Formats: sequence, C-alpha cells, structure tokens
Amino acid sequence: MVGTMTLKVAAKSNPSTVAGAIANNVRDGKSVEIVAMGPESINNTVKAIAIARGFLKGDGMDANFKPEFIHLTIDGEKKSAIKFFLNIEKNPK
Amino acid sequence: MVGTMTLKVAAKSNPSTVAGAIANNVRDGKSVEIVAMGPESINNTVKAIAIARGFLKGDGMDANFKPEFIHLTIDGEKKSAIKFFLNIEKNPK
Repeated sequence: MVGTMTLKVAAKSNPSTVAGAIANNVRDGKSVEIVAMGPESINNTVKAIAIARGFLKGDGMDANFKPEFIHLTIDGEKKSAIKFFLNIEKNPK
Repeated sequence: MVGTMTLKVAAKSNPSTVAGAIANNVRDGKSVEIVAMGPESINNTVKAIAIARGFLKGDGMDANFKPEFIHLTIDGEKKSAIKFFLNIEKNPK
C-alpha cells in the first residue's frame, strides 16, 4: 500500500532499528517522514538516515533529507520539533 | 571562488549563524559539507539546515543533505562523527 509513513524517533530509539524501518517503508514504495524532538532524538534520526543509506544502496537507491521546524502542543505546552522529509534517489550517481 | 567549504559545527554553535554561513557559501557557488560530533552539534546542524532552507528560498533554491559516518582520531582517541553533504536544488518544486 502506497502512502506516507510518519516515524517518531525518541531519545532511546535504536538508530539501526529506525534505519531498518526507513528502508522497509521505502522498499514498500511509501514516502517517509520522521519527527524528532530534542538533541538525542535528532542525533538518533541522523544516524538512522546514515545507516539507511547503506541499506538502500543494495537496492540501487539513496536517500536525502530536508529538515523543517514543526510546532507541537503536548499537554498544553508548546514545543518545537524537527520533521525530516526523506527523498529517495533511484540509480544515484 | 568555487570549491568545497567544510564547516565544523560545535555544541555551542548558533544555528542561525551556521545557517547564514551555509547560505553565503551556496550563493558563492561553493559546495558545502558540515562535520558535527555528538548530539548537541548534530542538533545544531539540523536546525541550521532547516533555517538555511528558509534563507535560500528567497534565492529560488532549496537544500537537502545526506549524512554519512566518518571516523576521526583526536588526541589519539578514535571518535565517530557525522558529515553532512549538502545538495542544492535550483527551482525546487
């Protein structure tokens, strides 16, 4: 099923596990977005993307990302987070 | 002068300042790479990219990044860091 998968990455998320989720969704033809809040979560997301690039290389694909600020209200408190939009490159140079 | 500018982003770097440096180098026609080590530096880098995208929008450009692990030896100690490779999109959708 094609669509957009939004993954939430936390401070305790394992980058390799997230990388596997990214690669699997990409292989399924889905668009992937990742939401992360705070330095540890953002760090895990960047590592996950670096690892996922390696996974996708075997499928003749690569990934790049565009980060964007988003604003959430959690328990009445305003927080800012980063949303990473993944773009898939087929047959990258 | 065309070339590759490697920016080093630290835990105390100001994301807006880094964003300005990214945008200025891109406008000068340079390729930009960013090296960051540790969650705070990586967080600052991602925020800087998000801000730089806003700066470049006014020039009809957008930017995406590909992160990659790199390994450095600092004072005899092996450390891993992330290198962000910047790709410029002209006339983005």
